[in-house]
Amino acid sequence: MTAIPDFSAVQAMDEADVLRAYRDRFVLPDGLIYLNGNSLGVAPKAAFTHLETAVTQEWGQDLIRSWNIAGWFDLPVTLGDRIGRLIGAAPGQTVVCDTTSINIYKALHAALALRPDRSVIVAEGDSFPTDIYVAEGVLSTRPGLSLRLEGVDAPSIQDLIDDKVAVILVNQVNYKSGELRDMAALTRKAHQHGALVVWDLCHTAGAMPVDLDGANVDLAVGCTYKYLNGGPGAPAFIYAATRHLGAINQPLSGWWGHARPFAFEKHYAAGGGIRRFLCGTQPILSMRALKGALDVWDDVDLVALRKKSLGLTDLFIALVEEKCAGHGLELETPRDHALRGSQVSFRHPHAYEIMQAAIARGVIGDFRAPSTIRFGFTPLYIGYADVWKAADILSDILATGAWKDARFAVRAAVT
Amino acid sequence: MTAIPDFSAVQAMDEADVLRAYRDRFVLPDGLIYLNGNSLGVAPKAAFTHLETAVTQEWGQDLIRSWNIAGWFDLPVTLGDRIGRLIGAAPGQTVVCDTTSINIYKALHAALALRPDRSVIVAEGDSFPTDIYVAEGVLSTRPGLSLRLEGVDAPSIQDLIDDKVAVILVNQVNYKSGELRDMAALTRKAHQHGALVVWDLCHTAGAMPVDLDGANVDLAVGCTYKYLNGGPGAPAFIYAATRHLGAINQPLSGWWGHARPFAFEKHYAAGGGIRRFLCGTQPILSMRALKGALDVWDDVDLVALRKKSLGLTDLFIALVEEKCAGHGLELETPRDHALRGSQVSFRHPHAYEIMQAAIARGVIGDFRAPSTIRFGFTPLYIGYADVWKAADILSDILATGAWKDARFAVRAAVT
Repeated sequence: MTAIPDFSAVQAMDEADVLRAYRDRFVLPDGLIYLNGNSLGVAPKAAFTHLETAVTQEWGQDLIRSWNIAGWFDLPVTLGDRIGRLIGAAPGQTVVCDTTSINIYKALHAALALRPDRSVIVAEGDSFPTDIYVAEGVLSTRPGLSLRLEGVDAPSIQDLIDDKVAVILVNQVNYKSGELRDMAALTRKAHQHGALVVWDLCHTAGAMPVDLDGANVDLAVGCTYKYLNGGPGAPAFIYAATRHLGAINQPLSGWWGHARPFAFEKHYAAGGGIRRFLCGTQPILSMRALKGALDVWDDVDLVALRKKSLGLTDLFIALVEEKCAGHGLELETPRDHALRGSQVSFRHPHAYEIMQAAIARGVIGDFRAPSTIRFGFTPLYIGYADVWKAADILSDILATGAWKDARFAVRAAVT
Repeated sequence: MTAIPDFSAVQAMDEADVLRAYRDRFVLPDGLIYLNGNSLGVAPKAAFTHLETAVTQEWGQDLIRSWNIAGWFDLPVTLGDRIGRLIGAAPGQTVVCDTTSINIYKALHAALALRPDRSVIVAEGDSFPTDIYVAEGVLSTRPGLSLRLEGVDAPSIQDLIDDKVAVILVNQVNYKSGELRDMAALTRKAHQHGALVVWDLCHTAGAMPVDLDGANVDLAVGCTYKYLNGGPGAPAFIYAATRHLGAINQPLSGWWGHARPFAFEKHYAAGGGIRRFLCGTQPILSMRALKGALDVWDDVDLVALRKKSLGLTDLFIALVEEKCAGHGLELETPRDHALRGSQVSFRHPHAYEIMQAAIARGVIGDFRAPSTIRFGFTPLYIGYADVWKAADILSDILATGAWKDARFAVRAAVT
């Protein structure tokens, strides 16, 4: 390993950073090194100003007329297309609505309707659990389907794909390890067997360039409150490739997905294109904050973003392995750039206590059961100096045994 | 009919109104008479202040820690219980989440799981269409079920109930006519046949006292952005009676409904009580505005609210029938108090143009296809003088034929 840089060297890296100016567009709390943007992104200043307009003018003054004059009715598709640019989706294939969990439900049903003669759903045993839970929900009302899990029914998802498989639900980056899958290769393999793939982009949208159209992806979902900084619980998105849109059927058939939502017809008729994934009335205030958050993204160079992301995670890995050597941290995230998302995870038997001690020192990452500490690196607002300081504080906590303080073992309701 | 009051008489009615002080707690745009609170309620000032705190402090500064310290994680149940007081639901039976459409989907599946040997869903042919559309969505993935519609398969819903019926989905107040159903009687009749009832409270929650527990209701849903003033697209609610909670199963089984959401278990296990209706991550900013909106409600006398609602609608009917006589308006809303919600609808062959002309004069109601003009009366912020002025403007539009101006016939994308 090459020698790790000193603090003045990382300051020089920040000065040379082509994305450095974006940092000023976010609210960064004093005294915090926030490495948890993979859970909840910080607030873009534009989200505040948009929300101010949305509540004082659009809701407060214009009221119901804002469905037209403020464009509320089209927000799901206008915001969908703006996210589309970040995930390699040409316009008309992405819509913002509901939650990731509910969009997974729609996507799985849509895939099953496209493959009516097939009966198997494949998912990952170590995915963020909601993916499995929702797949189980789909199975619960449709007899004759079955679920195969990677890590349970076979070590690799590749070995679970055969001609009975209707759909594979898979994360592009694993929420815990940060491992990145090869989207194009897995999609190709699925298609060779006639199966469809639903990609969960929760940990890649806004973290790196994604190329849904280029990889010939069928369906995808993702959230907007992590790397896209849309606000807590901001509405999710769902994508379907143009070639599938005419045949999409999903059972959450509410008024907003109807072909003629204001004709008040007595029977459902799915709307054209991607709008058929819409169901009920969306949370407009949360949607308006997201609209502001997306203003930041319109001119971001995603290649530079990915380069910086790898620079930040490379630096963190090098610094932690050097400064924390001998304290039992085990790198869980792949070293290979081709396999890494925008986070770094370590395993440790006392992961929970170590993370609580780090949080108490102003380094915000998170703990994932049973033994992972996880740090997310959001290239638009995290700098190399932040990485250096975080590693320094972590090494101090380990060297001094500060994490052994009894208060760090007390678990909060939400971790 | 008794003589209609003059303007000084209605001003005296406002002065004597025990709910008058609530008006100051809302943002009421200058120059508007807003009779559309049954579509989107006006903004409570407290919603603004809550949202300000939520974005600047909770999201902006405290970030991920707000799930604990700001109580984000418990918002669905704490807000659910506050709505519970308004709908006659003892604590622990109501949760705020997702959209009305999606909650109907959950409620229907839950009812079907409670009545596994039955195959029929009953709904209203003239309900707000999303109710039917969602019922059709449930049917689309579950072969062997059928849907009976009031007004299509029989004139009255009472005639559709037999021992094959699993669940009846019905609105307490019809969105178009404003007709109120007898909740206790219909629920009793359903139970006599072993069927369950899902009540849609979109047009009664916050408009009048509702007594879910007293009427022995099984399940209910409703929205929070109409009479509850929670903000555009604010999250909806769902209720299940305590006696059903242990056996509730619904297929939107996401992480937030899990018994141990932070244990990251590989299989779904439904959480205890009403939390099992939760699915994915909720739009917290919209939820926080709703929390502020509910502050207004904590001490509202619902009996006084209902009395004023009937006073407002009685007055509007009397004024319009007197002042607009001979211009072809036909009252669609029942005169009988026992059958009336908090809105008044009239039919007219040129309903669309008349409503556009009224809106241009600052009287905001809405049009519902094919020929209804609809006015909602929100007792907390509408006064008798508003009613008088609205009727006066409407009569002027009809008397002068102002609605015949060609610009009023141009239909907007959203009506």
